[in-house]
Amino acid sequence: MDRLLAYMKETAAVVEKRLETLLPYADLRPENLHEAMRYSVLGGGKRLRPLLTMAAFDAAGGRESERQQALDAGCAVELLHCYSLVHDDLPAMDNDSMRRNRLTTHKAFGETTAILVGDALQALAFKVLGESAGPRAGRAVVELATAAGSTGMVGGQMLDFEGEGKSQVLEDIERIDRWKTGALFTVCCRFGAIMAGADDEALTSLTEYGNAIGILYQISDDILDMTATAEKLGKTPGKDKVVGKLTYPAALGIDGARNVVLEKSVEAKDAILGFDKQALYLRLLADYLLDRVS
Amino acid sequence: MDRLLAYMKETAAVVEKRLETLLPYADLRPENLHEAMRYSVLGGGKRLRPLLTMAAFDAAGGRESERQQALDAGCAVELLHCYSLVHDDLPAMDNDSMRRNRLTTHKAFGETTAILVGDALQALAFKVLGESAGPRAGRAVVELATAAGSTGMVGGQMLDFEGEGKSQVLEDIERIDRWKTGALFTVCCRFGAIMAGADDEALTSLTEYGNAIGILYQISDDILDMTATAEKLGKTPGKDKVVGKLTYPAALGIDGARNVVLEKSVEAKDAILGFDKQALYLRLLADYLLDRVS
Repeated sequence: MDRLLAYMKETAAVVEKRLETLLPYADLRPENLHEAMRYSVLGGGKRLRPLLTMAAFDAAGGRESERQQALDAGCAVELLHCYSLVHDDLPAMDNDSMRRNRLTTHKAFGETTAILVGDALQALAFKVLGESAGPRAGRAVVELATAAGSTGMVGGQMLDFEGEGKSQVLEDIERIDRWKTGALFTVCCRFGAIMAGADDEALTSLTEYGNAIGILYQISDDILDMTATAEKLGKTPGKDKVVGKLTYPAALGIDGARNVVLEKSVEAKDAILGFDKQALYLRLLADYLLDRVS
Repeated sequence: MDRLLAYMKETAAVVEKRLETLLPYADLRPENLHEAMRYSVLGGGKRLRPLLTMAAFDAAGGRESERQQALDAGCAVELLHCYSLVHDDLPAMDNDSMRRNRLTTHKAFGETTAILVGDALQALAFKVLGESAGPRAGRAVVELATAAGSTGMVGGQMLDFEGEGKSQVLEDIERIDRWKTGALFTVCCRFGAIMAGADDEALTSLTEYGNAIGILYQISDDILDMTATAEKLGKTPGKDKVVGKLTYPAALGIDGARNVVLEKSVEAKDAILGFDKQALYLRLLADYLLDRVS
């Protein structure tokens, strides 16, 4: 596990450095918008999505010459993820004041700017992907746009809001988690495989791994929302219960949800049984994410 | 001019039909989101952006086999434009209740849904472009993302809001108009040229045409905001003056702004002097947009 933590730290630093370059500098007009974009993306987070891209890239035997493409694809997903957090925190959405132990973007820069920050970050995500993916750009853009859109991340948000206060039906919860969180996790693993030039079999395995890890992560996040302190979480805990969100721990209890996390962790590792030791970090990551809620 | 009106009507109908297919159907989950997306895009508008793409495609001698690609590229820009209108109308932005003589999206579906509609439409725009542009996808996506982003459309919105109530400096107004509106108009003309496989010279000419037409259109819009009725405009007129937006008519008066529109119309037509009769509709369009405010 120490090896994973070192890999995570190292990858997060590489991602942070790359994001710093990909984001427009704050002395470029419109300065306030660019400052708010940098505030919303830089200086925090585990960078789990680009980490997944790089670990999948390594698992699929990616070459050094293609590492930068994989990194940029991972950064594109991270930019997209960051835009979704900014919009998600808005008063008309989750109405959150704190994120990563700092003020949310609309609290720090105002609501108008926060809406525009999210919009500009989404455009930047596609720009980064279009610039870096070379002949694979068309395919990669379609995959990211599908995962981000109305039957992916945004669709999941919509179902999430519509489901608030409704009865906890597992099938609905599963769809919300798969769309809201799973779609981007899966696309990260697929980007790693695609940029490594993986064959169809490897791509399918890494897709299944991503599916399982995405659900695992969302459920563990929902468990932490019920059990962790604000300081540890970096944001207000217990909000899901207040608004009556559809989540696994709400439907099954904490222990029931922990069991699903365990199942998903096994499912993730099973999906990559065919890979050799290059898939070490993916395996360790499935354990690490399980440990968060054990 | 009758020929142009017939061409506009015909193209708008083709675009409308294509958008109907590109948008997810309203019986697909999440139904409310998809219904709101269709409401926000379909059933109105001159479809000026895809019209420009098709007219530029024809001017550059595009082949029938590439017409669908050009149409989809134009539709991608239209989807992006529609998302910007939805977000622009939000309470934290322009706070508008009417658009195209109907309720704005957040008035009809609520603010949460409207934010998500805009986010999903932006993703869909890139999906459509990625799917249709074939080997040109990387380049096309980068162009659209740049035009849509923090030094394009969104950057223009930001400067627009920051400029409210400030003194009217022509240089600032010109930058706002160029970013907020000009960037997408230019990209439309470029997409028409690119999908037609135009050479660099033709691409440059059509880029210059697009630059001029974009500014022309924004100024004429600002003039109409001061002179037209709500019914004709389809939205509340006179709002720019109330909030003190930086516009040409505010800085130069209506007649001064009309003169700039005339200049831009001449500039647009000059840019495409080298084209033959296939550029007829682009020429007529420059006159048509001038006539709106004459």
